[in-house]
Amino acid sequence: MTQPFGRVIDGKAVAAELRRDVARDVAELVASGCQPGLAVILMGIDPASQVYVRNKAKQTREVGMASFEHRLPATARQTELLSLVQQLNNDPAVHGILVQLPLPGHIDERIVLRAIDPAKDVDGFHPLNAGLLAGGGGGLVPCTPLGSMILLRSVRPGLRGAHAVVLGRSNIVGKPIAQLLLAADCTVTVAHSKTERLPDICRQADFLIAAIGRPEMIQGDWIKAGAIVIDVGINRVPTVDGKTRLVGDVAFEDARQRAFAITPVPGGVGPMTIACLLRNTLQAARSQSGGSILSSAGKSLP
Amino acid sequence: MTQPFGRVIDGKAVAAELRRDVARDVAELVASGCQPGLAVILMGIDPASQVYVRNKAKQTREVGMASFEHRLPATARQTELLSLVQQLNNDPAVHGILVQLPLPGHIDERIVLRAIDPAKDVDGFHPLNAGLLAGGGGGLVPCTPLGSMILLRSVRPGLRGAHAVVLGRSNIVGKPIAQLLLAADCTVTVAHSKTERLPDICRQADFLIAAIGRPEMIQGDWIKAGAIVIDVGINRVPTVDGKTRLVGDVAFEDARQRAFAITPVPGGVGPMTIACLLRNTLQAARSQSGGSILSSAGKSLP
Repeated sequence: MTQPFGRVIDGKAVAAELRRDVARDVAELVASGCQPGLAVILMGIDPASQVYVRNKAKQTREVGMASFEHRLPATARQTELLSLVQQLNNDPAVHGILVQLPLPGHIDERIVLRAIDPAKDVDGFHPLNAGLLAGGGGGLVPCTPLGSMILLRSVRPGLRGAHAVVLGRSNIVGKPIAQLLLAADCTVTVAHSKTERLPDICRQADFLIAAIGRPEMIQGDWIKAGAIVIDVGINRVPTVDGKTRLVGDVAFEDARQRAFAITPVPGGVGPMTIACLLRNTLQAARSQSGGSILSSAGKSLP
Repeated sequence: MTQPFGRVIDGKAVAAELRRDVARDVAELVASGCQPGLAVILMGIDPASQVYVRNKAKQTREVGMASFEHRLPATARQTELLSLVQQLNNDPAVHGILVQLPLPGHIDERIVLRAIDPAKDVDGFHPLNAGLLAGGGGGLVPCTPLGSMILLRSVRPGLRGAHAVVLGRSNIVGKPIAQLLLAADCTVTVAHSKTERLPDICRQADFLIAAIGRPEMIQGDWIKAGAIVIDVGINRVPTVDGKTRLVGDVAFEDARQRAFAITPVPGGVGPMTIACLLRNTLQAARSQSGGSILSSAGKSLP
């Protein structure tokens, strides 16, 4: 059997399909009397954050959910932010809460993220959700890992027994992806900046998940022939004409020659993140109408 | 430099030393007015569980802690067990709570373990503690993984950059050990029953952690020369004379020929577990006198 190579995974298309599925389920939930609501807190005036928050609000409304936006000045005190979080925790119209990162330097990000009710923690960053994921499921899963898994499954539905190599061990990407791959019966290797003989480790990967934040660090000849490459990196690099462009952690054109399938940057994992945020908000709305987050444990993972 | 081979790691000696350290710190805490207390709940009359509980109580008293034992008949209702857990959660003399497993079939183990105050969860099984571990530390770490790491460090203090292979992905052993190894800057591979070409995966391991529960499954020629082998398995097998003996997951005599160091079964990881339970109870007592479990995040891992 000849194997086609170099398929480019269309993250925009998969994300659009996911949003359509979410919109259909939201409509059902609305018909039964519950409109899912997502609240976003933006502190300060970081231009990139403002763009993200605007996009999130737009897509939230497009799938039929209620969108709540809360802005605080960059100088607001942590207690103000925490009391806003508490108010949203108690608001029955709000099923998901997202605090846009990064936060100003005088705010302890960890304290704020842990103040969010885990049942409304649609970013999946609360340690209780991290623990439920480690235990095999039931909580809310961080959006980028969730989106990466959906893209992987879009080209290889059965993952069992394959060797996945995750490059990067952040709490918001690398580690949760490793847990999802393990739950999908992959053998999982987590490599990182301290890893020795990294190219050899990568060459074992049936699935290579790059989340290391180093532009085009992963060379074409690090890719096993026929591998699936999911590139989570989004790095802005200068071009010869003095402008900038976005590249991933993988040298795309070279890797594509060897991979069975690969995600581009942009247009790969990126578009999945907001779509998965909406999916999480839907899940949160459902479980808040049905019971506590702890009692929903055992739900299947992506 | 010639490397000595086949060193047998003496878990009994390391555990005794750890208990001495704990006893010294308990004495200090007692002098400052707080005696750490460990409560164990035993439900039913399983003979092995009774032996474990007796040993735990004895060692708890030996390090100067208060030991509380609560017994419930095998027929007690789940609500009775939960209200006992609640009572211990609220008891300021109790800093650690351990529910002896397995529980009778009519009890939902998951609900019971999640009812324990995470700050008193000295087994480290609550999802909040699993999440804190995944996030890099600050919670209570399961005892057997903790003990395995202490044994590993007893023969190789610096672990950075080494390739660790963990065989087994249980929530109470394999997954937490993988998190601890990752936090120690190892490259970490988690293999399991669905892993293909397991011997080849094992042969990459600088550190091989076997927690798969299959007697002597790991052959000598799966061991990389100079590796450190931590055998978490405890399997009872029949002998030719009709009796039984304990063996690990590793074919010990053959593996010893190739390993730099290896833990025996019995006398390796086994003795560490209760010692680490006492260490956790000490940590819990300290953090309960100092603040909430969430505010202690960031504490260094073993």
